[in-house]
Amino acid sequence: MKLESYLKERVAMVEKALDRMVPKASTKPATIHKAMRYSLMAGGKRLRPILCLASAEACGGKPETALPLACAVECLHTYSLIHDDLPSMDNDDFRRGKPTCHKVFGEGIAVLAGDALLTLSFDLVAQAESWSRYDVRALIRELADAAGSQKLIAGQVADLEGEGKPVTRRQLQFIHECKTAALLTTSIRFGGMSANATPKQLAALSTFGQALGLAFQVIDDILDVTQTTEKLGKSAGKDIAAQKATYPAVIGLEASRKKALALTAEARESLSQFGGKAEALHALADYLLNRDY
Amino acid sequence: MKLESYLKERVAMVEKALDRMVPKASTKPATIHKAMRYSLMAGGKRLRPILCLASAEACGGKPETALPLACAVECLHTYSLIHDDLPSMDNDDFRRGKPTCHKVFGEGIAVLAGDALLTLSFDLVAQAESWSRYDVRALIRELADAAGSQKLIAGQVADLEGEGKPVTRRQLQFIHECKTAALLTTSIRFGGMSANATPKQLAALSTFGQALGLAFQVIDDILDVTQTTEKLGKSAGKDIAAQKATYPAVIGLEASRKKALALTAEARESLSQFGGKAEALHALADYLLNRDY
Repeated sequence: MKLESYLKERVAMVEKALDRMVPKASTKPATIHKAMRYSLMAGGKRLRPILCLASAEACGGKPETALPLACAVECLHTYSLIHDDLPSMDNDDFRRGKPTCHKVFGEGIAVLAGDALLTLSFDLVAQAESWSRYDVRALIRELADAAGSQKLIAGQVADLEGEGKPVTRRQLQFIHECKTAALLTTSIRFGGMSANATPKQLAALSTFGQALGLAFQVIDDILDVTQTTEKLGKSAGKDIAAQKATYPAVIGLEASRKKALALTAEARESLSQFGGKAEALHALADYLLNRDY
Repeated sequence: MKLESYLKERVAMVEKALDRMVPKASTKPATIHKAMRYSLMAGGKRLRPILCLASAEACGGKPETALPLACAVECLHTYSLIHDDLPSMDNDDFRRGKPTCHKVFGEGIAVLAGDALLTLSFDLVAQAESWSRYDVRALIRELADAAGSQKLIAGQVADLEGEGKPVTRRQLQFIHECKTAALLTTSIRFGGMSANATPKQLAALSTFGQALGLAFQVIDDILDVTQTTEKLGKSAGKDIAAQKATYPAVIGLEASRKKALALTAEARESLSQFGGKAEALHALADYLLNRDY
């Protein structure tokens, strides 16, 4: 498959849906809706929603059916970026090549824009269909779990508390599983659920998500060391400057590269039962592994 | 009815349920669960959950059935207080007579504790029963609406943007409807929904909530002018110091008192169809009106 045109088409599909599902920038009060859209429409990779749609297809479903869930995970992801970038957290000035939300709208509005996107993500899930195996209740509980105080937020807490302290490989894996793999896995599982996946299919998608999520974060860690700020679209070397726990810091650069390769292989193996229907998921895993690192 | 013992019993019921539904302080990472519980268990009036339970009873339901929803609105309310108190927002050092969350745990953890409570509130709603007229989908959408960028968050934005500027009576009513009345109304409607209220009952509860919510905020505004910090349990005179839009500032103290009285009368009238079953709701409205102001 031609990944470039596939990604282009899917990014357009997701962004059109986001534009439809998020209040217009002119909706009052305009400031908050401008701030929400500023961060949401900043042109990220749309990795989570695209994985959601591809997982729906792997299970024989239509991408359109998964769209409200795909948009929900993208809103939730954007909320977590806005709050992580705040001065009281990672204190980042750039994100996706643009000044961060709080640099443009001020800290108070940035906190509120994140809050609003988090709230909206649950509203979007509640707008999804119910399928015979998965109802809205199950979807909401899954998203609340992935985004909650023992997953996504736990990862950010561990990250904050780990700064400047020696971190074990095990602690590092916990942070990455919480901060990245949990929501990535939910994005992928949501796609399967929207296609009324069998329990066996859903289990395979969970394994895929965990491995891919961890691989993705290991690669992000590597890129922070090896890339320039310009190419990265966010401040490079920030992790080192903040003495953050990263794979290259804990196990070294070469071992990190090997880890990323092994995780991607594990991810691909977990897709065997889907056959040709998982073509897009395979291509996406390769694409993530083959970023310049 | 003896309101004092009623309130004591209901506060205990709500706090026991909260203690059961929120992760223990020892749950890892401990910092975030300590911070969530610090603010959640700081001994507020539990007004929203108590109104939720009383509304369930007014519609012939059992308070126990409404408990997950009552806890959800209290978690959501506490999240909004934690974020509103942040230095980038109202910059408050005291809340409910204790140092605010960010004063104790730092700003980063306070942002995350609010995020976690917001997320938890949706999880709690998804744990509620479904009733023939109202399913989990309807409940989630109602909470997301009340807490979203056009209600609760819109009120905080308008509040932030209104500081130091002249505010009309109409703008002031918008702020109060968004910041206070919306979630109060949802708390009350949730109680009715948990008792499978008829559309007519639910409409009456909505009117009650809107009037009571506005009355409550007008009284809060008055108390900020007339009370000491000690009696208030939070910094008194803060609204004046920050040149915030308040009823006494816009329409004067005496007119504000009359407004509170009129709104409370409107709230009580809306309860007529419930007869004796709304005894607790009547008593709660009186209690709110008869605070020392």
